[in-house]
Amino acid sequence: MAAPGYIDDKQRLQRRLRRIEGQVRGLQSMIDDDRYCIDVLDQISATTRALQSVALEMVGDHISHCVANAVQQGGAEKDAKIAEATAAIARLVKS
Amino acid sequence: MAAPGYIDDKQRLQRRLRRIEGQVRGLQSMIDDDRYCIDVLDQISATTRALQSVALEMVGDHISHCVANAVQQGGAEKDAKIAEATAAIARLVKS
Amino acid sequence: MAAPGYIDDKQRLQRRLRRIEGQVRGLQSMIDDDRYCIDVLDQISATTRALQSVALEMVGDHISHCVANAVQQGGAEKDAKIAEATAAIARLVKS
Amino acid sequence: MAAPGYIDDKQRLQRRLRRIEGQVRGLQSMIDDDRYCIDVLDQISATTRALQSVALEMVGDHISHCVANAVQQGGAEKDAKIAEATAAIARLVKS
Repeated sequence: MAAPGYIDDKQRLQRRLRRIEGQVRGLQSMIDDDRYCIDVLDQISATTRALQSVALEMVGDHISHCVANAVQQGGAEKDAKIAEATAAIARLVKS
Repeated sequence: MAAPGYIDDKQRLQRRLRRIEGQVRGLQSMIDDDRYCIDVLDQISATTRALQSVALEMVGDHISHCVANAVQQGGAEKDAKIAEATAAIARLVKS
Repeated sequence: MAAPGYIDDKQRLQRRLRRIEGQVRGLQSMIDDDRYCIDVLDQISATTRALQSVALEMVGDHISHCVANAVQQGGAEKDAKIAEATAAIARLVKS
Repeated sequence: MAAPGYIDDKQRLQRRLRRIEGQVRGLQSMIDDDRYCIDVLDQISATTRALQSVALEMVGDHISHCVANAVQQGGAEKDAKIAEATAAIARLVKS
């Protein structure tokens, strides 16, 4: 098993995910406290953007490492990795 | 202070947010375990969709209660609440 | 048949849609001219944002008129219009 | 100047863009005819999805050709092309 493309960014990704976990707990407190709908909605939008940002960092790492390695190998592995990355980007755009 | 529009849905919203918190912790474990980038990305997409779903439930509650009450009062309050809701929906669409 | 919620904004909406039509024809010229992928992609993103902006204006008009009228009538019509608007906003967020 | 990554897909892309141009003209007719807001909104969502789909085809072509060629050259060109592609994908996800 090769190391994942994000191997050198693990600490930063984990810090960001812990912050997102804190935002989700913050949402639970806002609802416990009967905070105004619009304030809760804006906090949900901020959390969604933070998650997208982690996803985009991971897409960059994946292209730089996993896809780039497959391209250097060439052949069927190259085509398969590019198709797989493109499909994952499509799911991200549509989510 | 009026009760928020989601007052009758608090338990369900909290259950969904706790599940989302679990998904975010699951993402941290995936990264700890060096899971494949594409699998992590798909799990991020699923978490984003779950958050959007909570936001959409809150938009429905907000229109049914806060906006509908303001419409029944009429006047400036009506216009202000509709403008505020529309702006929040715009931020959600763009997030 | 009642007038649609956007009746007073028709001229502005049509102007914006004609500009979007021009952007789509511009995309065809870019491809005819073999323009660089990234430039085409950014022009597609701009066109998508322009369409979303028309959609958000229409959501605002719909809530201000159609939904507000139904709320003033109350009863089943009110609930049906709010459910319908919320479902359309969900499709917009997911598109 | 190298050929763009989508060179072999030009005919299909142009067909899809002409169909999207037709959808945008269809939106103008719907508004001329005072069609119901929700029907217009759903047609806008369909047009947005069609544009995203063109964008995703172009992302796939760009990675398969332009990025893959740069990876095979290696060096600064490789890093620059990957950073540029990742930034364009980010703009697409946020649009």
